[in-house]
Amino acid sequence: MRAAIRRGTAIVCEDIAEQPLAMGQVRVKTLACGICGSDLHAVHHLDRMVELGRRAGGGMGLDPAKDVVFGHEFSAEILEHGPGTQKILKEGTRVVSVPAAMNPAGGMELIGYSNLYPGGYAERLILTEAMLIEVPNGLSSEAAAMTEPFAVGAHAVAKAHLEPGSACLVVGCGPVGLAVIAALKARGHGPVIAADFSPVRRRAAEVLGADVIVDPATDSPHTHWTAYGVPATLMEAQLARMMGRAVARPIVFECVGAPNILQSLIEGAPPGAQIVVAGVCMETDRIEPSLAINKELELTFVFGYSPDEFAQTLRDIAEGRIDAEAIVTSRVGLGETPDAFKRLARPDADVKIVVEPWR
Amino acid sequence: MRAAIRRGTAIVCEDIAEQPLAMGQVRVKTLACGICGSDLHAVHHLDRMVELGRRAGGGMGLDPAKDVVFGHEFSAEILEHGPGTQKILKEGTRVVSVPAAMNPAGGMELIGYSNLYPGGYAERLILTEAMLIEVPNGLSSEAAAMTEPFAVGAHAVAKAHLEPGSACLVVGCGPVGLAVIAALKARGHGPVIAADFSPVRRRAAEVLGADVIVDPATDSPHTHWTAYGVPATLMEAQLARMMGRAVARPIVFECVGAPNILQSLIEGAPPGAQIVVAGVCMETDRIEPSLAINKELELTFVFGYSPDEFAQTLRDIAEGRIDAEAIVTSRVGLGETPDAFKRLARPDADVKIVVEPWR
Repeated sequence: MRAAIRRGTAIVCEDIAEQPLAMGQVRVKTLACGICGSDLHAVHHLDRMVELGRRAGGGMGLDPAKDVVFGHEFSAEILEHGPGTQKILKEGTRVVSVPAAMNPAGGMELIGYSNLYPGGYAERLILTEAMLIEVPNGLSSEAAAMTEPFAVGAHAVAKAHLEPGSACLVVGCGPVGLAVIAALKARGHGPVIAADFSPVRRRAAEVLGADVIVDPATDSPHTHWTAYGVPATLMEAQLARMMGRAVARPIVFECVGAPNILQSLIEGAPPGAQIVVAGVCMETDRIEPSLAINKELELTFVFGYSPDEFAQTLRDIAEGRIDAEAIVTSRVGLGETPDAFKRLARPDADVKIVVEPWR
Repeated sequence: MRAAIRRGTAIVCEDIAEQPLAMGQVRVKTLACGICGSDLHAVHHLDRMVELGRRAGGGMGLDPAKDVVFGHEFSAEILEHGPGTQKILKEGTRVVSVPAAMNPAGGMELIGYSNLYPGGYAERLILTEAMLIEVPNGLSSEAAAMTEPFAVGAHAVAKAHLEPGSACLVVGCGPVGLAVIAALKARGHGPVIAADFSPVRRRAAEVLGADVIVDPATDSPHTHWTAYGVPATLMEAQLARMMGRAVARPIVFECVGAPNILQSLIEGAPPGAQIVVAGVCMETDRIEPSLAINKELELTFVFGYSPDEFAQTLRDIAEGRIDAEAIVTSRVGLGETPDAFKRLARPDADVKIVVEPWR
């Protein structure tokens, strides 16, 4: 079957061999697979990502020197059931899955970051039957494939110490920031201030329900806190509490993942704010702890999502609480994948590109 | 009256003028006043501390170029009531107070960091009657003066997301770390692992109830987590949760406040840990956000305490839940204050030095 393969620091389109199904596995046809920012990074820095996971005490067991087929934001259709499967979902059923699978040795493989199993930039995938979730009728395969990136937003929001009336600022409206906006609005939180330099991404933030859209080139997002009753100073916050006025905690979502952003948020965030760090800055970064202390900030670093958050996100999309298709700006076949990776490096061109390997 | 004055970057002992009492104020005799690490820093870097407070949107309104009498960890005895006071606590009553006072212009002064009111390194203080708390009978004036530094620990513990069985690691057993240990044990939390290079401070940690005492020169504090059932890896934590085993969140208290400590804790802390940052690192510091993300760490920066936490701490000391005197290693008169500042710069010599201005 055909696949877009990461080899060295390039994406090449070639045929790869198909493997037999092991116990509990199903073979599926990839219907749609989003390109994730992690994949863009991993093309060049997969060794660093593997090392990072190892240092964090877990992570991916893959060898960056060997071929990997990326792609972990997929929807698919069941083609074939392997040995020992229950077959509750029949052939032809459309499914999504948390991109993880047990390997025959009993270890965990991350689909899309595995030397063993290909990810969604291949015509067919091997999934674990027990982890499949049926895609509800009427939901497009493209929208279903967006369950994974939107689950990242659901997890970030679950980790936020939100109170009724908490004002939220989402810094960066790439796929992660947009997923956070969607999850906040799906759960009824807000007001949501959204900031991005790109007009394409600001427009997507608006469609997903952000209440205030800010272009940081012309307007600091931090000037908007006071309009929502967020005290601008520690003294003001203390006086408000002394007067018995409830002061909801402001929440900032860092969804850029580049050096110096964290420090700019430590400087700009209101006193008492929680900064949920969902953007992955891969470089060593500089912060001023004494300023964070003086403002009593909380930095909550978040990663991934739980199976429950994944399943809830699919329901949010299927039941119309999240307009998942709003972030998809292009669809490409496998042969166009290398070019799509290049286009995504420019934030003004696209938000989310979906690969359709059957094209 | 006599006072130890911060002038330029020196502490000088001189007579200062006494001011008349304004509405609601009382004059008190200083009985005991602890020397705080902030004071040691402020002798040389008061301008930077003032600037930091201003950038945090509050802070001290003082002029570092003018004289300041430091000292915010005091107990005192009422000498004289000013105009408009209620006089519920009579002359001769021993009191403590949150070190804050309204100035005649209606603004807030921090006692010990004010150009207007002297702090506890003076024979007499001006306090606000409404903020006084009586020292219970039988409690030494020295122990009562320790309410303020121990309240810092109470606040840090209140900000920790402690669960039953949460293992706690306190890194640095200076006065802040010891206050955290005391507050954890007063509230029934633990096990508490305490780490410090200084034998004097390790001994104080033991007296205050730490369960495991670690000398980081010979033993990494992070090797002790597993003994308390804290999963060493993300995978282990995930599997434990899948098996339905409750995994209490590990909590690390950063009580050193020096560059590189935060990154060493990001590297050493177990996955999912909360790092409560109570040590004040005044320099710009380097961290690796991607590692914090991969481990889903939370960095909670804490500062000060509430009036409730202050009052609760006094009760904890008075009722024997906190052995406040255990941290006091020396007592000096006003004339010895400059020398005491020098001694405290060496962590092996002293933990807490108390100034007794009446000596």
